[in-house]
Amino acid sequence: MRLSRSFLPTLRETPSEAQIASHRLMLRAGLIRQTASGIYAWLPAGLRVLRHIGQIVREEQDAIGGQEVLMPTLQPAELWKRSGRYDAYGPEMLRIRDRHERDLLYGPTNEEMITDLFGQSIRSYKELPQVLYHIQWKFRDEVRPRFGVMRGREFLMKDAYSFDISYEAAVDTYRRMMLAYLRTFQRLGVRAVPMVADTGPIGGDLSHEFLILAPTGESGVFYDGELETLDWLSDPVDISDSASLDKFFSNLTSYYAATDEKHEEGAWSQVPESRRREGRGIEVGHIFYFGTKYTRAMDITVAGPDSTPVCPEMGSYGIGVSRLVGAIIEACHDEAGIIWPDSVAPFKAVIINLKTGDATCDAFCEQLYAAAPEQFLYDDRTDRAGAKFADADLMGHPWQLIVGPRGAKEGKVELKRRATGERFELSVDEALAKVLDR
Amino acid sequence: MRLSRSFLPTLRETPSEAQIASHRLMLRAGLIRQTASGIYAWLPAGLRVLRHIGQIVREEQDAIGGQEVLMPTLQPAELWKRSGRYDAYGPEMLRIRDRHERDLLYGPTNEEMITDLFGQSIRSYKELPQVLYHIQWKFRDEVRPRFGVMRGREFLMKDAYSFDISYEAAVDTYRRMMLAYLRTFQRLGVRAVPMVADTGPIGGDLSHEFLILAPTGESGVFYDGELETLDWLSDPVDISDSASLDKFFSNLTSYYAATDEKHEEGAWSQVPESRRREGRGIEVGHIFYFGTKYTRAMDITVAGPDSTPVCPEMGSYGIGVSRLVGAIIEACHDEAGIIWPDSVAPFKAVIINLKTGDATCDAFCEQLYAAAPEQFLYDDRTDRAGAKFADADLMGHPWQLIVGPRGAKEGKVELKRRATGERFELSVDEALAKVLDR
Repeated sequence: MRLSRSFLPTLRETPSEAQIASHRLMLRAGLIRQTASGIYAWLPAGLRVLRHIGQIVREEQDAIGGQEVLMPTLQPAELWKRSGRYDAYGPEMLRIRDRHERDLLYGPTNEEMITDLFGQSIRSYKELPQVLYHIQWKFRDEVRPRFGVMRGREFLMKDAYSFDISYEAAVDTYRRMMLAYLRTFQRLGVRAVPMVADTGPIGGDLSHEFLILAPTGESGVFYDGELETLDWLSDPVDISDSASLDKFFSNLTSYYAATDEKHEEGAWSQVPESRRREGRGIEVGHIFYFGTKYTRAMDITVAGPDSTPVCPEMGSYGIGVSRLVGAIIEACHDEAGIIWPDSVAPFKAVIINLKTGDATCDAFCEQLYAAAPEQFLYDDRTDRAGAKFADADLMGHPWQLIVGPRGAKEGKVELKRRATGERFELSVDEALAKVLDR
Repeated sequence: MRLSRSFLPTLRETPSEAQIASHRLMLRAGLIRQTASGIYAWLPAGLRVLRHIGQIVREEQDAIGGQEVLMPTLQPAELWKRSGRYDAYGPEMLRIRDRHERDLLYGPTNEEMITDLFGQSIRSYKELPQVLYHIQWKFRDEVRPRFGVMRGREFLMKDAYSFDISYEAAVDTYRRMMLAYLRTFQRLGVRAVPMVADTGPIGGDLSHEFLILAPTGESGVFYDGELETLDWLSDPVDISDSASLDKFFSNLTSYYAATDEKHEEGAWSQVPESRRREGRGIEVGHIFYFGTKYTRAMDITVAGPDSTPVCPEMGSYGIGVSRLVGAIIEACHDEAGIIWPDSVAPFKAVIINLKTGDATCDAFCEQLYAAAPEQFLYDDRTDRAGAKFADADLMGHPWQLIVGPRGAKEGKVELKRRATGERFELSVDEALAKVLDR
């Protein structure tokens, strides 16, 4: 994308309404603009990040047998009356009446709808397990929306729902999802630590929140630092084998990790002191087993192995996709701006032309740009170098390809790594190989 | 995807509520399920089609310099008061009040919001043209939703908006968009003919609807059959050159094409009789130049070449993405079911195992499936062959890879082309080469 013609409006000033770094930086870097309280439009760079996150989430859901669907944003009130939640849900549910005076609502979550869809189609235990997910906009009418996309009203979420024939099978599904989440966050370039969460009346240990460590987090967290070093992408778990899943899960849960609500001093004191990590965390995911709560309430059954009807065991599994954009920035920024992890960055690199209008510089930059126009942002504006450097640091591209008249003449480009500040003087081929990871 | 574990529920019976072929087939083939009047959930196969269409639309928008954004589904009423449309819009606008008694609406279109976003960021004519688009869910509270996704209430639309410094520049943008649309529909495997549409008080010839010929279309259409044979993908238009765009547009508009509303017998009689095509058409796109209507009403200007403020000239350009799924089926089906064009099909091919459980058949099918598990549907159910053939024809996969015990033993697969019924007996390599277009 050529910056001179792009809709990537950066701001010099810090917007007064933004209280936390990610909100400030998302506005300043031109990722979003507020259109109403807690509601945002995603500009081209922001949308690219949102889509990169969505794609990684999707691939890891698919890898454990998830099937993607897309449920609508608006739901009929009747569906929620069947589960008993229509009256129970508070003022955060946006209730709507259509022209025929029928009650609708803007879905804050989809347990009822997916259970109904499942019930219309699945007849036999032979078709289980089923893991269905979608990535769709939700609405929660927060009384005080704030922190930008971190606590917005219209937000993008991946929510998955699982259906199993027995508790044992549901446990396997839960553990597969746990692994998918660990891999998802690792690929996103952040460490989200799973912490035991409240299961309410259901009990058991099958509810975990995933928290990214950041000073602006809403919860206090305590965990074993070893959890940050485990590599889930190369962990050879056999997801079709209960014993292998059990080994993975036992190993994971042998490390201490708890939010302040669940913190236990006794267990904490067992963690070697050098490995104790304390801080604050931002919740970016939640996985939850809740058994037959909805299938029973909505009277959904499948034929079991002996043909008697069985209410399937369910779980639900959320990832806050739009929230993650903010949470990643909270974890990855410095004074100058965002530091995007490679996997989610809107562009792999920015090409900074230090002398737009100079024939040699222009030709050199065009040559670089032509190598990957889809993945590069080309700063071809006539602004002074300082402004270009500032915008590049602000927008947080993982690499900066800096081209000046002297370098252009010698066929050299200066490559800067945003995260570390390292600089390299390289030929075009060397620089492109590094940036495009060839 | 393995059919035995997939959420691809086909129906034997014809649902009574469906009056037209596409609605019937979308329900029977397990593409959608209704969740409320005029509101649908997209099941895995339907979502794949929706996404394939969206991706082609996106690529052709990008090819003419479009930049993708994503505006929210809900909009503040204030914005529409600024343009004067809040009170003018009828009961099709879904009006919502939030917990703080603020008026919102579910966006039926986005002229106001994009104009506002543009005005916040673009300051100079040097940054023009800007073409911004998004693919987002919209809502129109139709009094009688019907025909499935063809006239639903919550629907997915691509809407683009252009900003130019002058009428002349806006004309170029309009013509570029015309070309993008012709290419988009051609790639989708259908011919959508552009027809002059009403421009209202603005006048001129810069408004076209795109109609797909189908007996269930809402408009009568008259056009020169030559329009169906033109190949836009290989037309060497230079989109950066006004003269080249003019030549393209003049050529296109030299062919007669009109809906019944705009039909003129005089001009029609000039078309050679053998080339006259009459029928009914489904509107799937609309492009429209409307000048400074919104920039003027909302007081949005940029600095012109002589620094005086200028209200940019705008156009808007829609494609009904979810509607297209139905429209394509209306144009591409037979008695047995859907006939997907290759470019939008949910799966490139179905592998039909005629004897699931037979070791040779199973191994042979697995070998085929492993070649492209992302693009193949493997019918590994234990059903009888007749049911598998019927489902394959119903779901409309472009190719069927049919594997029986005899063929498996000889290393042969029977390949059937859904559209023509042609059959080939081939080796694995030959069949895969044909199906995967290698």
